[in-house]
Amino acid sequence: MLTLHTWTTPNGRKVPIMLEELGLPYTIKTVNLKENEQFQPAFLALSPNNKIPAIEDTDENGKRFSIFESGAILTYLAEKTGKLLPISGPERYKVLEWLHWQIGGLGPMLGQVGFFTRSEEKSGLAIKHFVDEADRLLTVMDKQLSQHDYIAGAAYSIADIACYPWAVGVLDKLKPALGDKLDSKPHLQRWLKRIGERPAVQRGMALPRI
Amino acid sequence: MLTLHTWTTPNGRKVPIMLEELGLPYTIKTVNLKENEQFQPAFLALSPNNKIPAIEDTDENGKRFSIFESGAILTYLAEKTGKLLPISGPERYKVLEWLHWQIGGLGPMLGQVGFFTRSEEKSGLAIKHFVDEADRLLTVMDKQLSQHDYIAGAAYSIADIACYPWAVGVLDKLKPALGDKLDSKPHLQRWLKRIGERPAVQRGMALPRI
Repeated sequence: MLTLHTWTTPNGRKVPIMLEELGLPYTIKTVNLKENEQFQPAFLALSPNNKIPAIEDTDENGKRFSIFESGAILTYLAEKTGKLLPISGPERYKVLEWLHWQIGGLGPMLGQVGFFTRSEEKSGLAIKHFVDEADRLLTVMDKQLSQHDYIAGAAYSIADIACYPWAVGVLDKLKPALGDKLDSKPHLQRWLKRIGERPAVQRGMALPRI
Repeated sequence: MLTLHTWTTPNGRKVPIMLEELGLPYTIKTVNLKENEQFQPAFLALSPNNKIPAIEDTDENGKRFSIFESGAILTYLAEKTGKLLPISGPERYKVLEWLHWQIGGLGPMLGQVGFFTRSEEKSGLAIKHFVDEADRLLTVMDKQLSQHDYIAGAAYSIADIACYPWAVGVLDKLKPALGDKLDSKPHLQRWLKRIGERPAVQRGMALPRI
């Protein structure tokens, strides 16, 4: 049985969405970030960067192994099942380029908007820098979605699953800083609605239960 | 023939290193970031996020296609050649987890150290935040390299290629902010020396010629 170690954050919800889409059996172990459980030795053995999510699974020889980093886990689950990531050809790399775009851009930059707007000490320079960069990234996403139904093209993929929990945060926790930036991004809004209507996404976004 | 669009930055040097390691024929087109060439329509058609690197290659039907995002390009080149990324098994996902760790962590956080230390307007909060995070990430890397010869385990891989141009920057452009942080990281220093001695790395780090 696959074990998922996660918490109620955008990165933490990508893998529950993926597992619900795939219909794979799994169990969840919560890693309570508010109680610093990500620094416990048992979790660090799975995820030396002290970040959720991480998974444990069984290889073809029956041996347990673990993976950390949400992008690597999504790629693993897609390759394990042959779903949501083409196995070859240019379409495969369209998915991987937008997956990496989320991992290296959308995620870290929205994360910094959250950090600097919630910080008690204020830095106008940092808030402007990250709000501008977040808006630039959301504009790139809106333009891509003006030309394609899904973030990597015509098909739903792990790139959509990676982007969704972060993008939906713009309507939620990041709304005070970024909410009005979506007013001018109708294609992104339409995509948010379409992805949010998927039952597996709704189930995954409600996990982990705490 | 593969065409690489790149510039003399850490992300821009990952792909030249990879291509030199593989011995694949390619041509380079420079994208001069100082002259904002990343915003030219011809480049945006390849890389809608206006970032280098991007590549163009020919698929099995003879059709040209492009890929942006350094992590996606490294994965493509590894899968095209069967080198520097195991094709299956837990070792494959060790490489992908450290590749994603660089893309989502080491790269963006060292990039922010650079931005805030070079900014004329100063934010002590932001500088402390990113210097601390960079030091945490370099400590994670040093610990991993205390247990393994290479970042993802026993074998040199695209994870090393992704990390090297960023980590070597700590000794170069980021030295005023971070240089002394390496004094306490002997395993990372040993790895920097070992990777830096590879002829393909030396050739790739000297590209693009401008």
